[in-house]
Amino acid sequence: MHIDILTLFPEMFKGVFETSILNKAKEKEKFSYQLVNFRDYTENKHNRVDDYPYGGGAGMVLSPQPIFDAVEAIKKEKQTKPRIILMCPQGETYNQKKAEELAKEEHLLFICGHYEGYDERIREHLATDEISIGDYVLTGGELGAMVVVDSVVRLLPDVLGNKESAPMDSFSTGLLEHPHYTRPADFRGMKVPEVLMSGDHAKIEAWRKTESLRRTYERRKDLLEAIDLDEEDRNILANIKNQQES
Amino acid sequence: MHIDILTLFPEMFKGVFETSILNKAKEKEKFSYQLVNFRDYTENKHNRVDDYPYGGGAGMVLSPQPIFDAVEAIKKEKQTKPRIILMCPQGETYNQKKAEELAKEEHLLFICGHYEGYDERIREHLATDEISIGDYVLTGGELGAMVVVDSVVRLLPDVLGNKESAPMDSFSTGLLEHPHYTRPADFRGMKVPEVLMSGDHAKIEAWRKTESLRRTYERRKDLLEAIDLDEEDRNILANIKNQQES
Repeated sequence: MHIDILTLFPEMFKGVFETSILNKAKEKEKFSYQLVNFRDYTENKHNRVDDYPYGGGAGMVLSPQPIFDAVEAIKKEKQTKPRIILMCPQGETYNQKKAEELAKEEHLLFICGHYEGYDERIREHLATDEISIGDYVLTGGELGAMVVVDSVVRLLPDVLGNKESAPMDSFSTGLLEHPHYTRPADFRGMKVPEVLMSGDHAKIEAWRKTESLRRTYERRKDLLEAIDLDEEDRNILANIKNQQES
Repeated sequence: MHIDILTLFPEMFKGVFETSILNKAKEKEKFSYQLVNFRDYTENKHNRVDDYPYGGGAGMVLSPQPIFDAVEAIKKEKQTKPRIILMCPQGETYNQKKAEELAKEEHLLFICGHYEGYDERIREHLATDEISIGDYVLTGGELGAMVVVDSVVRLLPDVLGNKESAPMDSFSTGLLEHPHYTRPADFRGMKVPEVLMSGDHAKIEAWRKTESLRRTYERRKDLLEAIDLDEEDRNILANIKNQQES
């Protein structure tokens, strides 16, 4: 997979892209990336990338020309049809299903605005996707692009080792994860549940399943509605509800 | 505001924290931060921060001792009662309301796991908040902490200039923003709507209101349900629905 990122702040990406999984994936040649400052594509003599909004109002708007030209230069050079992803608050809310979809692509191109809005023609005639990583206001699209890249690259074949792949995958199963414990069994008076030290694997599995359902029920009922529970799960859940009501 | 970040990868934060708004806010002394590698607090001779899970299974679990001790050292040094925020997929889904709440605090302390899950005792007995930035799997909590810090620091008084403050604030009004346009009026055959160049401010405002409602209706009906619309808004919305049905 190749990833291009159009940004006015390429230096923002350094720490994240040169550390941890993204760096390992790059070294293993599982993905490559290029940071493109679209200011380099301006045709005006002051190198401006933004201008006043038609119709008045505060704030500046990113001009179409530098961004269209940067995208076209990349498409010409790479001879591909990339997914062109506009990071913006108006985009579809990002989730794990979208990460899985993007992980199948060969070429992703991210457009990151900063401060400003985009000229609507970029949205209508250039972007293939618009993504928002959540319902909060960020200074620019850069952090959003890093989030999407991290979540996509870790899904590419052979990127994750065993150590990294198993945990934290709450959104892959549809349920929140059960609690985890490690040594010591007694940490300053706070103890590990006995069942986890029992060696009885069936009991441990049952405990984990119950706690996973309990946590999801208590914190994210919306997730429960989105998945198919089997009869055993539904029975466990009915017990949890009964306990909480009594 | 002071922000402490506990992480195994402090170098990940460099690009983001030394650029743009966060750097400006730091230079204006609107906030200060410290990156703390909690590996420096391990008491075991191999400097391990994780261990096998009780009850078996894949993946490793972050041990309680280094994280408890790092937090206690910071609290002792700073003599404050920080909000202690665990970045994790099981946390409450982050939104603009939470950003506004956190922006009122004097001291935030983020705990970023990486790969692994946390020992449950960290969650139960140390954290005051658990935050997830969205329903997708990331390699670690670092990107989530950067997202929260960016969204909170930009809300602090005198951090944003006029240029930065107005746009992209979709989630502050509850509606998605209307389209923006800037010069040229005709870009390679793609034209700016005439109304925006009419100079008729009442018409422009009405167009923007309508397009903002239309976009929110088309893309994020859930946002419409969460806000109070006045009678004018409800009439506009009824028209949009009629147009789409006919």
